[in-house]
Amino acid sequence: MPTKTAKKNAKSGSPAPISEAEYRARVATIQKAMARERLDALLITSEDNYRYITGFNSPTWHNLTRPRYCVVPLSGDPSVIVPANNTAIIEETSWVKNVKWWIAPCPADDGVTLTIDALKACAGKFKRVGAELGPQSRLTMPVGDFFRIKEGVAPIEVVDGDWMLREIRMVKSPAEVEHLRFVAQAVSRGFEALSRRISAGETEKQVAEKLQADFLRRGVEKIPYLVGVSGAGGYRNIHLSPQDRVLRRGDVLVFDTGCSYKGYYCDFDREYSFGKPSNKIARMYDIVWKATQAGIDAVRPGATCSDVWHAQAKVILDAKETSGLDFDLAKNGRMGHGLGMRMCEPPSIHPEDFTVLKAGMTITIEPGISYTHDGKSGPEPRVMVHEENVTVTEDGVAMLTRRAPPEMSVVR
Amino acid sequence: MPTKTAKKNAKSGSPAPISEAEYRARVATIQKAMARERLDALLITSEDNYRYITGFNSPTWHNLTRPRYCVVPLSGDPSVIVPANNTAIIEETSWVKNVKWWIAPCPADDGVTLTIDALKACAGKFKRVGAELGPQSRLTMPVGDFFRIKEGVAPIEVVDGDWMLREIRMVKSPAEVEHLRFVAQAVSRGFEALSRRISAGETEKQVAEKLQADFLRRGVEKIPYLVGVSGAGGYRNIHLSPQDRVLRRGDVLVFDTGCSYKGYYCDFDREYSFGKPSNKIARMYDIVWKATQAGIDAVRPGATCSDVWHAQAKVILDAKETSGLDFDLAKNGRMGHGLGMRMCEPPSIHPEDFTVLKAGMTITIEPGISYTHDGKSGPEPRVMVHEENVTVTEDGVAMLTRRAPPEMSVVR
Repeated sequence: MPTKTAKKNAKSGSPAPISEAEYRARVATIQKAMARERLDALLITSEDNYRYITGFNSPTWHNLTRPRYCVVPLSGDPSVIVPANNTAIIEETSWVKNVKWWIAPCPADDGVTLTIDALKACAGKFKRVGAELGPQSRLTMPVGDFFRIKEGVAPIEVVDGDWMLREIRMVKSPAEVEHLRFVAQAVSRGFEALSRRISAGETEKQVAEKLQADFLRRGVEKIPYLVGVSGAGGYRNIHLSPQDRVLRRGDVLVFDTGCSYKGYYCDFDREYSFGKPSNKIARMYDIVWKATQAGIDAVRPGATCSDVWHAQAKVILDAKETSGLDFDLAKNGRMGHGLGMRMCEPPSIHPEDFTVLKAGMTITIEPGISYTHDGKSGPEPRVMVHEENVTVTEDGVAMLTRRAPPEMSVVR
Repeated sequence: MPTKTAKKNAKSGSPAPISEAEYRARVATIQKAMARERLDALLITSEDNYRYITGFNSPTWHNLTRPRYCVVPLSGDPSVIVPANNTAIIEETSWVKNVKWWIAPCPADDGVTLTIDALKACAGKFKRVGAELGPQSRLTMPVGDFFRIKEGVAPIEVVDGDWMLREIRMVKSPAEVEHLRFVAQAVSRGFEALSRRISAGETEKQVAEKLQADFLRRGVEKIPYLVGVSGAGGYRNIHLSPQDRVLRRGDVLVFDTGCSYKGYYCDFDREYSFGKPSNKIARMYDIVWKATQAGIDAVRPGATCSDVWHAQAKVILDAKETSGLDFDLAKNGRMGHGLGMRMCEPPSIHPEDFTVLKAGMTITIEPGISYTHDGKSGPEPRVMVHEENVTVTEDGVAMLTRRAPPEMSVVR
């Protein structure tokens, strides 16, 4: 019964909220890094950085009309500059007390002057402020207005401050790991229950409906990312939304999802075979499952992302050599990534990413292969990707997800 | 039964997909505007613009690691520059045939050189290209990389090209209106069914679970935006996610949602009274309902957004004067906005927005008031916001949503 499940989760499993002390500790760590990077202030505009620092929590980010700003000074508490109708969100979800507001939308000056003033008030020492400009960042405001802020604060220099935040945020606190574990466990159990709740004859979309409803019942708050793809003899890619395609015996269906709980994400996939999988599919699954295991086993403090990539690649490339089967590494460019208040964060599990793993980091292990299915009208390309979420511990690794079964789940 | 409902929707109500001819007509309209604005090319990076032009449809936008680019030339077909693992998305969802790709992530050059080359190849006539820089835009790539593109194409000038697109996109085609109607109708029916399916003693989150599952069953594809707030004697704001608060008699619960179908949004709210509403709440509801109706009735080709704002404000301000009740206009800054492949688009229903309404525009009518609830421990601020979605017709207005009931829905 839905109600019962939700209550049970709320009672037992759900982690304690992030405390004001933790938010303050985050700011202190950021300010230490700012001193090292010679930044007087940080300008924050993107949802995850904003929530990480201030706690600000609202669906309003989906409305692009009104931007919002947070300024972190070199010392002292952050301040926020928000549309008037967002002050209630600050009062209800944030520990930050320095609030300035304007009535938005106001195309002539949507917070620009207030933000220029706030940055200038901080920028005495280094004459440099950081903004979200670096790799994988998204400045969450109109860039035309950013140019006006940049000109407005001159001769104060505006440089990237995002990468510094990314590096700090790679290492999670125990409370953060508990949030990540909670959502990964809820989604794992939803995936495990699915094969018994669906059958051939349903469409991808209908199956996705059941899966999403179940995730929500298990305590997931949002399902911002849901891929669902199916096909005879495997799936063509792992990037499309579920469609009206009817599922049939011989199909493989994959779901890949980024669900969130209090802003913390899981990111992993699971596969379902409609009827017993072919020998070929079973072999492919076994190889990718073992590559995943090798990746998990390679995670420990001191190992690099490159090491974890090579551990996974070795299983696949060795199997390619000895199995006589025709497959190759998928063209994803990496085999996993950081995970936190973004679904995909640095580092990358990539042969040339030499980030050293530390206790508290949370990453995905995500090997993939491409192979060929002998379809009715000739050869058809297929991929197979597995993914698990783990955290680096003091002496090794701990699972956040519940491990995928060693053989593909079968829908009877 | 879920399966039956979904089948029924898929069979009867769901609109035909956007045709290649329509995508080509969109590009032709854009190119005409580009000539007028003296732009050799448009650089597109944001999800809704990208989908509007190319059809590209994938949840992958939620992964910020890999950006993607589309270049619209002054004449000829657009080209796309995408990560290697996104080429399958183009093949499956887009009509665009000019595809360049790179293996991402590649922090040293994530599509930057390819994009510079593509822009330079177009920019012969005006030496100007447009990018997403203007009001309400979001450049969906790292801004550090945008600076590199800007420098890389110099002396070609990069100016805002987004506002031109916004103006074109304000007017919807019949096929677009059908998509918007489909999702608005599905969500309307889900809202209408809710009061019979919930009861006091449940939490906001539990009620939200039921509502979301029902939306999905009725054919909604995604629920990117869901606000749920409740309180004794009304709700404090209309900006927070549903929480574990238990609903009790005397509460008012509001849900505001932006659901999407094939990328097209609805955006409206509905309220529920747990037990019969107080006289005060009933009066407030009546006033805001009538303000909404006045807004709807003011919509016709030739009217301005300002006219529609004033029609709504008049009902509220007149009632304030004659009713003797203590309330005021809410501080939202506007009373409605454009609606389409973004939940909130220009124009704004704002006293100073003089955009002239034209047949095919789709807008929300969204009056709001603030008032005071006499709580146990003193006066508490409350807001009440109503919202409907409409389209401008050749001679007036047509509803997209099913009109909210003239009295607040009661949960018994």
